[in-house]
Amino acid sequence: MARGAIWAAIAGTLAGELAQGLYPAGAKLPTEAELAARFGVNRHTVRHALADLAAKGLVVSRRGAGVFVASRPTDYAIGRRVRFNENVTAAGQVPSRELTRLETRVAAGHEAAALGLEPGALVQVVEGVSLADGQPIAMFRSVFPAARFSGLLDALREVPSITMALAAAGVDDYVRASTRVTAKAAKPVQALRLRLREGAPILRTEAVNVDGAAVPVEYGLTWFAGERVTLTLSV
Amino acid sequence: MARGAIWAAIAGTLAGELAQGLYPAGAKLPTEAELAARFGVNRHTVRHALADLAAKGLVVSRRGAGVFVASRPTDYAIGRRVRFNENVTAAGQVPSRELTRLETRVAAGHEAAALGLEPGALVQVVEGVSLADGQPIAMFRSVFPAARFSGLLDALREVPSITMALAAAGVDDYVRASTRVTAKAAKPVQALRLRLREGAPILRTEAVNVDGAAVPVEYGLTWFAGERVTLTLSV
Repeated sequence: MARGAIWAAIAGTLAGELAQGLYPAGAKLPTEAELAARFGVNRHTVRHALADLAAKGLVVSRRGAGVFVASRPTDYAIGRRVRFNENVTAAGQVPSRELTRLETRVAAGHEAAALGLEPGALVQVVEGVSLADGQPIAMFRSVFPAARFSGLLDALREVPSITMALAAAGVDDYVRASTRVTAKAAKPVQALRLRLREGAPILRTEAVNVDGAAVPVEYGLTWFAGERVTLTLSV
Repeated sequence: MARGAIWAAIAGTLAGELAQGLYPAGAKLPTEAELAARFGVNRHTVRHALADLAAKGLVVSRRGAGVFVASRPTDYAIGRRVRFNENVTAAGQVPSRELTRLETRVAAGHEAAALGLEPGALVQVVEGVSLADGQPIAMFRSVFPAARFSGLLDALREVPSITMALAAAGVDDYVRASTRVTAKAAKPVQALRLRLREGAPILRTEAVNVDGAAVPVEYGLTWFAGERVTLTLSV
């Protein structure tokens, strides 16, 4: 085998192992030193192989942290019924959520307007991170009328499912009244939470969900990692 | 008046003139030197006033080019019937289109799949830039089955309206079957065409339009300037 083909052979071996699922999406690959030892080559050759995998979109290198297995983008349906757990499960991934803030406060002007509340009304606010296969795909802030959903935060502390917390408050079903989608550059805190580089593209949705009587129950902002999520809409 | 308030007074005056529409969206403001002469202050004070307007989102500074009047984002509906001219007109702006490429070629694999064509089938391809009030809001590439729409490119050379060109080919109406939305960073050519900085957020949609018999008539990719467009969806 020609000397120049060694990195390509190593890249091919690693690509095969990724295809077989030996390393799941989001997992950290062995270090350059470990791969060099495994294949009996120097680190320069390993680096060449990893750069090839990165160019093919199979791995992502994060400065100072290592090389990680890239995920397939999650298809996320934003039709009439938008449910995080169902969407991620339908994409063949395991959903989870980390709540980072639960509080009762006065509604901001745009929040009150979206929920049809009087200025100064109280709202329940839930912030958190949504994950697919353990990898963060979105940050979210959901706002609910406090007068109607007084026990919501306690319910969410038990089980971090908004659908279940609303059901416990008597809302059997809710549907999406409107969604607005914009593209933004990730700010430092968003980049940190979503494990993106600063300035990476973000899909931001602003949405209102209503109950069966068309009364707003939730006003939500979501910041999706643009590289990991495709919003889908079938009519 | 205190010395420190001069820049604020100048910013207030300029904001008032912008609100009155003296400078339309996308227009270039007078230079710092011109503004300094007009208000009888030094350029440092003018710069402070312009920075204040930029922080409020009223103007956008482009390195080496000057300071421009910011546009209000265009709301762009992506529901069942998506029509560029109607959408921009509904946002209170004047729509226009520049076609940059008209060609008949072999369909790429994903294009043939989206249009339900055999591999290797011919397609009509239209590329261009969509503008609102003279400011570019999107680049697009639309792909049509060539066998069915043989006269499409000639029709578009006459009038750059896809709706009218399809009507001339016997498609009275068409509806959106699916839309996929992702966020991307602007590549150099996109940044140039859309007058954005390189890496600025882009909203990319991939869509299929079908005729009344649910047969695909158009496969389209659109790259919207994230700062200037909000995609809206009402159910």
